[in-house]
Amino acid sequence: MYEVVQEFYLSKGFGGRVGFGENPAIVVIDMAKSWLDETSPLGSENLDPVMDKILRILSSARARHVPVFFTTMAFDPDGAEMAGPVGRKLQHSSLQGALERGSDLVVLDDRLKRRPNEPLIEKQRASAFWGTPFLSYLVGRNIDTLIIAGCSTSGCVRSTAESAHNHNFHVVVVGDAVGDRSGIAHECNLIDIDMRFADVVPTAKVLAYFDGR
Amino acid sequence: MYEVVQEFYLSKGFGGRVGFGENPAIVVIDMAKSWLDETSPLGSENLDPVMDKILRILSSARARHVPVFFTTMAFDPDGAEMAGPVGRKLQHSSLQGALERGSDLVVLDDRLKRRPNEPLIEKQRASAFWGTPFLSYLVGRNIDTLIIAGCSTSGCVRSTAESAHNHNFHVVVVGDAVGDRSGIAHECNLIDIDMRFADVVPTAKVLAYFDGR
Amino acid sequence: MYEVVQEFYLSKGFGGRVGFGENPAIVVIDMAKSWLDETSPLGSENLDPVMDKILRILSSARARHVPVFFTTMAFDPDGAEMAGPVGRKLQHSSLQGALERGSDLVVLDDRLKRRPNEPLIEKQRASAFWGTPFLSYLVGRNIDTLIIAGCSTSGCVRSTAESAHNHNFHVVVVGDAVGDRSGIAHECNLIDIDMRFADVVPTAKVLAYFDGR
Amino acid sequence: MYEVVQEFYLSKGFGGRVGFGENPAIVVIDMAKSWLDETSPLGSENLDPVMDKILRILSSARARHVPVFFTTMAFDPDGAEMAGPVGRKLQHSSLQGALERGSDLVVLDDRLKRRPNEPLIEKQRASAFWGTPFLSYLVGRNIDTLIIAGCSTSGCVRSTAESAHNHNFHVVVVGDAVGDRSGIAHECNLIDIDMRFADVVPTAKVLAYFDGR
Repeated sequence: MYEVVQEFYLSKGFGGRVGFGENPAIVVIDMAKSWLDETSPLGSENLDPVMDKILRILSSARARHVPVFFTTMAFDPDGAEMAGPVGRKLQHSSLQGALERGSDLVVLDDRLKRRPNEPLIEKQRASAFWGTPFLSYLVGRNIDTLIIAGCSTSGCVRSTAESAHNHNFHVVVVGDAVGDRSGIAHECNLIDIDMRFADVVPTAKVLAYFDGR
Repeated sequence: MYEVVQEFYLSKGFGGRVGFGENPAIVVIDMAKSWLDETSPLGSENLDPVMDKILRILSSARARHVPVFFTTMAFDPDGAEMAGPVGRKLQHSSLQGALERGSDLVVLDDRLKRRPNEPLIEKQRASAFWGTPFLSYLVGRNIDTLIIAGCSTSGCVRSTAESAHNHNFHVVVVGDAVGDRSGIAHECNLIDIDMRFADVVPTAKVLAYFDGR
Repeated sequence: MYEVVQEFYLSKGFGGRVGFGENPAIVVIDMAKSWLDETSPLGSENLDPVMDKILRILSSARARHVPVFFTTMAFDPDGAEMAGPVGRKLQHSSLQGALERGSDLVVLDDRLKRRPNEPLIEKQRASAFWGTPFLSYLVGRNIDTLIIAGCSTSGCVRSTAESAHNHNFHVVVVGDAVGDRSGIAHECNLIDIDMRFADVVPTAKVLAYFDGR
Repeated sequence: MYEVVQEFYLSKGFGGRVGFGENPAIVVIDMAKSWLDETSPLGSENLDPVMDKILRILSSARARHVPVFFTTMAFDPDGAEMAGPVGRKLQHSSLQGALERGSDLVVLDDRLKRRPNEPLIEKQRASAFWGTPFLSYLVGRNIDTLIIAGCSTSGCVRSTAESAHNHNFHVVVVGDAVGDRSGIAHECNLIDIDMRFADVVPTAKVLAYFDGR
């Protein structure tokens, strides 16, 4: 149904193709238990297909020395870092301990096998850039293209894509390697992302791009 | 249809109520010809009902000395400020002159009657905070509550609401005083905004809040 | 000798008095072994007098429920977070392990007795605001005045004062509660800070302000 | 006298050499009447030698298609953009009209002969990055090296150098192409810049770098 939005926005000159640049990096957003486990307050539907795609992308990226970054979220257990409106808006965070620093819930999923040279960015908002040094990691490596995978499409993925677009990177969101706890939110936000901030492409296209470098 | 997303997100602990704080300001987003005139590349459906609500809010705010801010967008005619992926993504901006600094299209609508003590923020991205001094105008006035009106819901309104939430303001988006060139995009994004970043309330509630101060 | 700069800048209209606002917070910058121990690569001359003043300010602030924040610096041991020009400029950081996350060197000095509701901000640059969520902690508490103590005057203190000034807070640097590994750098930078970014005042004045609230 | 600071900081591992990268840009800071004319409240001593060096650098850069950026400062005449502590600290700005948008004082000096494809960044704080889209202009052009000239060394030059360092660019400040209204402030701050944020090099070295590309 949201396709009518896509059509209308395309007719207005939104949704241009940015394409891949010459020096890519990957960021994998919030693939930790708090978002992956259905029993967690923030948990999503089964994101195993998304994880499979991410593992394929990581494998190819690592073989080609494409820089890899990961994010998770973390707040102090005491709540002092959530004082104010933020803690009232996102009650799961302040009330239910879903995002406590040091808890099992915010540790990256084992399957990702993060390496020591792949920075883990601890963030407190949706965007990987907000309140973190992430931007400087990209600039210091001359990155011009940010490829985004992980969850959730309507939250941290969209926000990270917007921030990267704002900073003027080539932004690529891997449509089948991102997910959301709501399928509908996933679909609609993927179209908004494609119209405004990033090229939404399938995993196969990212792998082909890596192969061609 | 997007209501199922709302229900599901509420069940997960999203969508808490932030409420109004004690020291509000209003920001009116992009109410200029480029977005209001249907003949413009970026033009929206008839936003007159939105304008009517905005004028009522402004009237009440000015009578009570609530600070008022406006935004518009502007790029140099030469295109140097759009060089890179941003200009490729938003082709209307770079190709069609819809956002040229100094053109009639980006001047605020006359009906707003901006006053000299109401800053006009010229921005180059969706958020009123991105690449602008807006945040310092709020901090310097001890503002704790940002009330957002204008257009477009799925773009500049959502992004401004997210930025203000990130900075930990009480954020209020006036549901009937914001609009989008697509009604569906308006509806879906308003729910995302309400779940994640801001309380979405009707104009009447803002006016009552002003009356009660 | 740097007093001639002060006189000249005052004659040009720099160095106005900002004064205290109504809702203060304290930030104590980098009072950890890496900066306090003379045997550390980054170590300063004896900062015990500075520590004494800080402890007096903390005691008064805590008794009056003035929010307290601390900073330290930390980078991953692998060096991936220092890749690029930053690591080449500050060689102690990348080569000598002086700022490794988890090492004794970056843990706050015991005498500060940090409490659970006093956030510790881990930063990677001089300013407490850069790449951290610190700003949102201040906005969420309606802070209008930031009182700065700690080290080093010519680095992290000056940068934090400038950031806070940029955001339009009342900024107060406590002249006898900040220090530098070089006494001359301390003197000269304190004057620059006073002319451009913050009121430089003695500890006694901060304590009197707290008493008068 | 400040050389003792330099020696001490070098001994501690500060002041590493960053070197030039592969894709440079130039930013010329605040070379407008407000800073260049001794009769202006903000005016400097004779900056003609600095201007001469800047013109030589611009000539070489333009011939080699190195991107060029300029900055100036501007506030609304009404004062609403200066409300709060910022306006109290920098009284020349709020009281004496030295930085009014549209006034002759903030227009770039004619000798610079700015071209349409050389963006002019209007800033409200010392750093060219603060509250402006400047960073995105650099990222969108794949710039890895920022060469800084203009004034004042102890203010806008130092702050811009620090911001660029924070973002992890190679930062180069051209020692004889920057100036300050105080010679002593110039000398001391140039050393701090060299120890912490940027390589300070003479114009000849920048020209040689351009020739060798």
